[in-house]
Amino acid sequence: MAEFLWKKDDTPIDEAIMAFLAGEDVLLDQHIFLFDIEASRAHVGGLNRIGLISDDELKNLDTALSSLAAEFRSGDFVLDRHFEDGHSAIEFYLTDKLGETGKKVHAGRSRNDQVLVATRLFLVDALGQLGERCCEIAEAFLKRAETDGALPMPGYTHLQHAVVSSAGLWFASCAEAFIDNAVLAGQTREWVSSNPLGTAAGFGVNLPLDREYTTGALKFSRMQINPMYAQNSRGKFELQGLSAMLQAMLDLRRFSWDLSLYMTPEFGFVDLPDQYTTGSSIMPNKRNPDLVELLRGECATSQAALAELSATLSLPGGYHRDLQLTKAPLLRGFIRGLAALRLVPGLVRSVILVPEKMRAGIEAEMYATDRAMELVAKGAAFREAYREALQNPEELAGRNPEDSLTSRNSPGAPGNLCLDELRDRLARVSEAD
Amino acid sequence: MAEFLWKKDDTPIDEAIMAFLAGEDVLLDQHIFLFDIEASRAHVGGLNRIGLISDDELKNLDTALSSLAAEFRSGDFVLDRHFEDGHSAIEFYLTDKLGETGKKVHAGRSRNDQVLVATRLFLVDALGQLGERCCEIAEAFLKRAETDGALPMPGYTHLQHAVVSSAGLWFASCAEAFIDNAVLAGQTREWVSSNPLGTAAGFGVNLPLDREYTTGALKFSRMQINPMYAQNSRGKFELQGLSAMLQAMLDLRRFSWDLSLYMTPEFGFVDLPDQYTTGSSIMPNKRNPDLVELLRGECATSQAALAELSATLSLPGGYHRDLQLTKAPLLRGFIRGLAALRLVPGLVRSVILVPEKMRAGIEAEMYATDRAMELVAKGAAFREAYREALQNPEELAGRNPEDSLTSRNSPGAPGNLCLDELRDRLARVSEAD
Amino acid sequence: MAEFLWKKDDTPIDEAIMAFLAGEDVLLDQHIFLFDIEASRAHVGGLNRIGLISDDELKNLDTALSSLAAEFRSGDFVLDRHFEDGHSAIEFYLTDKLGETGKKVHAGRSRNDQVLVATRLFLVDALGQLGERCCEIAEAFLKRAETDGALPMPGYTHLQHAVVSSAGLWFASCAEAFIDNAVLAGQTREWVSSNPLGTAAGFGVNLPLDREYTTGALKFSRMQINPMYAQNSRGKFELQGLSAMLQAMLDLRRFSWDLSLYMTPEFGFVDLPDQYTTGSSIMPNKRNPDLVELLRGECATSQAALAELSATLSLPGGYHRDLQLTKAPLLRGFIRGLAALRLVPGLVRSVILVPEKMRAGIEAEMYATDRAMELVAKGAAFREAYREALQNPEELAGRNPEDSLTSRNSPGAPGNLCLDELRDRLARVSEAD
Amino acid sequence: MAEFLWKKDDTPIDEAIMAFLAGEDVLLDQHIFLFDIEASRAHVGGLNRIGLISDDELKNLDTALSSLAAEFRSGDFVLDRHFEDGHSAIEFYLTDKLGETGKKVHAGRSRNDQVLVATRLFLVDALGQLGERCCEIAEAFLKRAETDGALPMPGYTHLQHAVVSSAGLWFASCAEAFIDNAVLAGQTREWVSSNPLGTAAGFGVNLPLDREYTTGALKFSRMQINPMYAQNSRGKFELQGLSAMLQAMLDLRRFSWDLSLYMTPEFGFVDLPDQYTTGSSIMPNKRNPDLVELLRGECATSQAALAELSATLSLPGGYHRDLQLTKAPLLRGFIRGLAALRLVPGLVRSVILVPEKMRAGIEAEMYATDRAMELVAKGAAFREAYREALQNPEELAGRNPEDSLTSRNSPGAPGNLCLDELRDRLARVSEAD
Repeated sequence: MAEFLWKKDDTPIDEAIMAFLAGEDVLLDQHIFLFDIEASRAHVGGLNRIGLISDDELKNLDTALSSLAAEFRSGDFVLDRHFEDGHSAIEFYLTDKLGETGKKVHAGRSRNDQVLVATRLFLVDALGQLGERCCEIAEAFLKRAETDGALPMPGYTHLQHAVVSSAGLWFASCAEAFIDNAVLAGQTREWVSSNPLGTAAGFGVNLPLDREYTTGALKFSRMQINPMYAQNSRGKFELQGLSAMLQAMLDLRRFSWDLSLYMTPEFGFVDLPDQYTTGSSIMPNKRNPDLVELLRGECATSQAALAELSATLSLPGGYHRDLQLTKAPLLRGFIRGLAALRLVPGLVRSVILVPEKMRAGIEAEMYATDRAMELVAKGAAFREAYREALQNPEELAGRNPEDSLTSRNSPGAPGNLCLDELRDRLARVSEAD
Repeated sequence: MAEFLWKKDDTPIDEAIMAFLAGEDVLLDQHIFLFDIEASRAHVGGLNRIGLISDDELKNLDTALSSLAAEFRSGDFVLDRHFEDGHSAIEFYLTDKLGETGKKVHAGRSRNDQVLVATRLFLVDALGQLGERCCEIAEAFLKRAETDGALPMPGYTHLQHAVVSSAGLWFASCAEAFIDNAVLAGQTREWVSSNPLGTAAGFGVNLPLDREYTTGALKFSRMQINPMYAQNSRGKFELQGLSAMLQAMLDLRRFSWDLSLYMTPEFGFVDLPDQYTTGSSIMPNKRNPDLVELLRGECATSQAALAELSATLSLPGGYHRDLQLTKAPLLRGFIRGLAALRLVPGLVRSVILVPEKMRAGIEAEMYATDRAMELVAKGAAFREAYREALQNPEELAGRNPEDSLTSRNSPGAPGNLCLDELRDRLARVSEAD
Repeated sequence: MAEFLWKKDDTPIDEAIMAFLAGEDVLLDQHIFLFDIEASRAHVGGLNRIGLISDDELKNLDTALSSLAAEFRSGDFVLDRHFEDGHSAIEFYLTDKLGETGKKVHAGRSRNDQVLVATRLFLVDALGQLGERCCEIAEAFLKRAETDGALPMPGYTHLQHAVVSSAGLWFASCAEAFIDNAVLAGQTREWVSSNPLGTAAGFGVNLPLDREYTTGALKFSRMQINPMYAQNSRGKFELQGLSAMLQAMLDLRRFSWDLSLYMTPEFGFVDLPDQYTTGSSIMPNKRNPDLVELLRGECATSQAALAELSATLSLPGGYHRDLQLTKAPLLRGFIRGLAALRLVPGLVRSVILVPEKMRAGIEAEMYATDRAMELVAKGAAFREAYREALQNPEELAGRNPEDSLTSRNSPGAPGNLCLDELRDRLARVSEAD
Repeated sequence: MAEFLWKKDDTPIDEAIMAFLAGEDVLLDQHIFLFDIEASRAHVGGLNRIGLISDDELKNLDTALSSLAAEFRSGDFVLDRHFEDGHSAIEFYLTDKLGETGKKVHAGRSRNDQVLVATRLFLVDALGQLGERCCEIAEAFLKRAETDGALPMPGYTHLQHAVVSSAGLWFASCAEAFIDNAVLAGQTREWVSSNPLGTAAGFGVNLPLDREYTTGALKFSRMQINPMYAQNSRGKFELQGLSAMLQAMLDLRRFSWDLSLYMTPEFGFVDLPDQYTTGSSIMPNKRNPDLVELLRGECATSQAALAELSATLSLPGGYHRDLQLTKAPLLRGFIRGLAALRLVPGLVRSVILVPEKMRAGIEAEMYATDRAMELVAKGAAFREAYREALQNPEELAGRNPEDSLTSRNSPGAPGNLCLDELRDRLARVSEAD
């Protein structure tokens, strides 16, 4: 049974209510506990700078917080239902180790800004990871575009044959998407990098806290100035962070859809090594692309997390306990999303193209647009060219996919993929991270 | 490390991929494991009826399945990451206990219909519980309406004072909402009570399974006939079940809003016993209605679960691994929703009304509509009455709330709450459960 | 510029604010205007029964309301931005035609219950239409199952070849889904069929309204008793109605996915007549299944309408202007959903199966499950059979799809589709409508 | 009846299908038509640069496009159901005016990139407007914080009295939120400012289009290189744009909640001029804050638009007609969101504070945290101070709100609002726009 800081002695305790109030909070806090410790270090550093904690006390607190982090990492300190939450756990640990000094740590802050700063640090870190994952994925796609880019395959609109496409066009389209996603992760990270520490329960404190110091110490980009805004931003920043995650998951969903489709026996453009597939308990002949399907399905987690957050945030200003419920969707969204994205570079590298199936899907009619364009180039009005293109089937039958691809030379087209420009962009966003 | 039924010896294993594939499946299965066992008993009963399992084998399987259920309930059998999922765990247990006989249990079914039938049974059970919770809540509200119904309080539209209202009108409004919710839970339960067992992976099996028998044995209302539809209904039935849950959570959200508002010092109409409130870590004077706020916020879980399910279901027909991801939102939505609803009857009974604050909020202008209606009753056209009502402030000042309430005598109005009719409806839906 | 019933003379008017307040309300009201008139007739009938309106006045009001309905239907009466909303339009029309008598119509009701009853009648009607559309769709699918049921095609799980399937299994799966959807529409219609008329602004009125009479006159199943609940149910009933619509749209989305996939040149199982496809502005060779794609995409409208409603409903009890915003998603969801569903029976009847392509997709390995099942029938334990089934490829190669289909004889399986039972269920739900 | 570019003569036409296919597309296109014309000018400019259009033709096309824009703005050219969509309308207009020259305009583009570039330009413009609206709103709040900042009022957490707060803390919290929203709008605008023109149907074209030129001419920040990515980004960029809109709407929802609460007679902290309120049709005494409630409710439109977009985007790569359905939620979300935000500066300026009610809500217990902090400043450990603060009620009773506010001097706190820093930030983001 956890102890409660605010507990008065005569309050009756209803176990069912306490269990509901506790929820899974302390378990969720395992994911932000190290950030909470980090913020606590910055906070005591700040208290020292305004003379509330002596240099010796600071040293002791620093050492104790380092030990706590180490013990937590090693598993010697277990954050579980013995504690109300991670915030209380830190205070109990410090008081246990340092007596009176430990009790001073809560001066000038509240659990409200403690949870805010810890989740904010988690969010900044998670968006950093998101950016890295997107860069790695873009890199994997770009390499495939460079290596296998020339392989022709049917191009589809409405899932119907349109014109000749190439593996390069496909892979480079994914590379560019994930470069954009990396840029978005970076700028979202910058936007959320706002320090709420020192705003307490939303009304500031009676201490001249050195908030510039803690902002710098925690590597935030700026101070979140207004304490009431700090409270009101609970969930708001999480939402924007998850919206950057959603963008990556949407593109992963689309690529997974492509794989799922191209791996059907009917398409057969793509195969996967055995470790990416599983068997069936009833159908001995099956090899199923379960991983690809789970990667596709995982997008729903981000969508649901966003729905949960925006549903929660219909409240007047100030802290309400409802806001505690923003923690679970934030953590679920990022932990599962990042786990999915981590598998993607390996998957991209492992995709086995089946060039003969890809080529076999290309039929003469798919050259009709090429033909129309040639007539335009010779001076025909487009609408006339369009009508003439299909009149001469033998002309179309004599063509080959490679010519079609190289003739498409507008910037970004299969004959002019601009991979160098994509590589430049990737280098820029990778460095910025 | 779990064993896999479909594992061929030469497949390389990638731990990160395996971990992602496994997800939290086996942990989630703890919530449907007993239903899986129950369905397995029905299945072997059916196999016996078509001669595939002898009477002795049936007896042994029955006994073993009972033991497994008992061991699981007592904690002697732990369903954890040693198993791929609950379905495999049952088969391993039976094979371990009964050798060859155990292996026969998978005849005529697939993990596909095994998970379908287990989650379907969970859903039917959960909707039964939802109905019971709604009835209990309605009962608690109805009792408060009977006991405290006459207490006057301001009535609001747009959160502005409108006309005189009463605690009875408020409580009875909640009672009727939860009666409707109980009816909805019941009819949704009936609708989802459709037996998918015996449809295997979506194509039926080469055995004349006695599906009528298993339908009856598992107390389903009807057989889900078409095997492909059984697969396609994965998530579909869960969605409709959660939609019934959402209705209850929406009404709980509104009632929690009322409490939250009425508990502000400015309103002060309502108080709660100490066990329903908590303290603050930084503000020693606070008593916070955290429970009420969490009950309000919990609605977002249902909304998110619905969003997650409908996002997942954008797929062609047949089973896809994406569908596995429907299990978590289903369980989360029901387990958390039911936990919240369980606390509501106690909360309703504990609400402390503060009659003097409720009465103090009533001002003379709130009788203007009464006055207008009286003029109408005397023959004035409504629009004229409307204009005259506010012209005579002394007339309004001389009135009292009780007269206003009793004069409102349309069916359901404060002077005519029709609690007997509500009680009749509650009795009917309680019996139907 | 509309006139406003509540307008006092000295209020300054800000055009931008007025425009925002008005929104698209009066245009939306075009869809519920006839229901508003119908409810007004019931209301004046009720007022007559309690002596507030004379028989002559009733006759005049009845005649005038009939004229209004007729003029609206013919286009002679246009409901546009000249009116604040449909409710005001009725009162202005009656006052214009009947003078004092017209003014009496608002006695005992408020715009609050007026909009409630009109949208409730719309909802009941729309759910009736939904039920009918689902029955027609089920009928179309059932007929295709009866006609083309025996045609073999590959069966898929994970979009990989699993076992032999049939057009009958596919079409019957859709038929059963839409039968269930029709049942759901019917029971949801019953659930929402609750009469709010006579509850005014949420506090009842000072008149002994004959609400049983209006409940019967408007063919509602029951009276919504509590006036505050009536207000609180704004959006709640709409949400449940749209949830029934969503179920139909989810199944339509899946069927559209199937068509989209089967119409790819690679699958080629299905073709559509020209009127179901469109061309491309740039690729002369294309025939695109746009309609199928729009039917698939339309599901998002229902999902969004549900999201909009549940986002709006986070409010304390009583009427708030936010609730006005529930009208647009309700109307959008049903009008667009029903328009989509209306096209489906024709589409189903028009689907052209390509038997040779369907058959060509079946390969010997797809008989492996059959083989395993035969070994089980001969006494082998399932797991052993499973391992043996693939050891003997020649045995599998000698099989044909028809035998595989007929051997699958479990109820609902391709060899035993139970179409009669489906037809019985369809007849039952069609009658119930 | 519209004409169709791709229409072949022998296709039968089904009116119901055609109506469904057309939907509201051409009406929606009214909002992007001028952008479509603008992009067409850039496109013909580009064609001229690569020699496909002569200087004379360019001049004629430029003139005709300018005329079309002018006629559309003046209402002389009406975009309605006579046209299939806005894209076709442009081509028909040009062909009608210029004959053969008009037909050349479609060379090197497709309706696919035409709609992409027009909606992208709309999105960039809308985000620019969003940024401006956010700056204006922040400015209005900042001014109120400067003017009325010192007024004390109760501070709430859990809607319970916490500590003394001020109008300045409240207004400045909103100012900072909208400054952040303006920054987000700006960086999102930068992110979506990616030129898809010249990617045709997703496979590039057989022309060396000068895409750098059109990128510059249309003031895009960068070229969207890969044509397949351009198609795949349909809806993706819209989603991110709406996510920036949602942030502003969430903060507007919270502020509206505050107003709604503070305007209750029980709180009474705030009043609004008459033009911001409306009357009741049945309750003559009412003045309702309808506008505030609609502003609060409008957030659901953004949430729903996001839900609709992310539901639509579950597709394989390449264009599908489903993507056409992204246009309506994009337009609805931005048009309605911007209309709501436009009213906010005026509303903020009009809010009438009621200082005596604000002050009257402050009670002695709200100084307990101040007291605890003072004890900490004197050296007490926080937990001890916390316990002592409430022991001495007389000490608390002697305090006044102004002292409490000025004593809270941490950066951002009521005694140190840092309005200059907020003003600096606002200036920076206003300039960047």
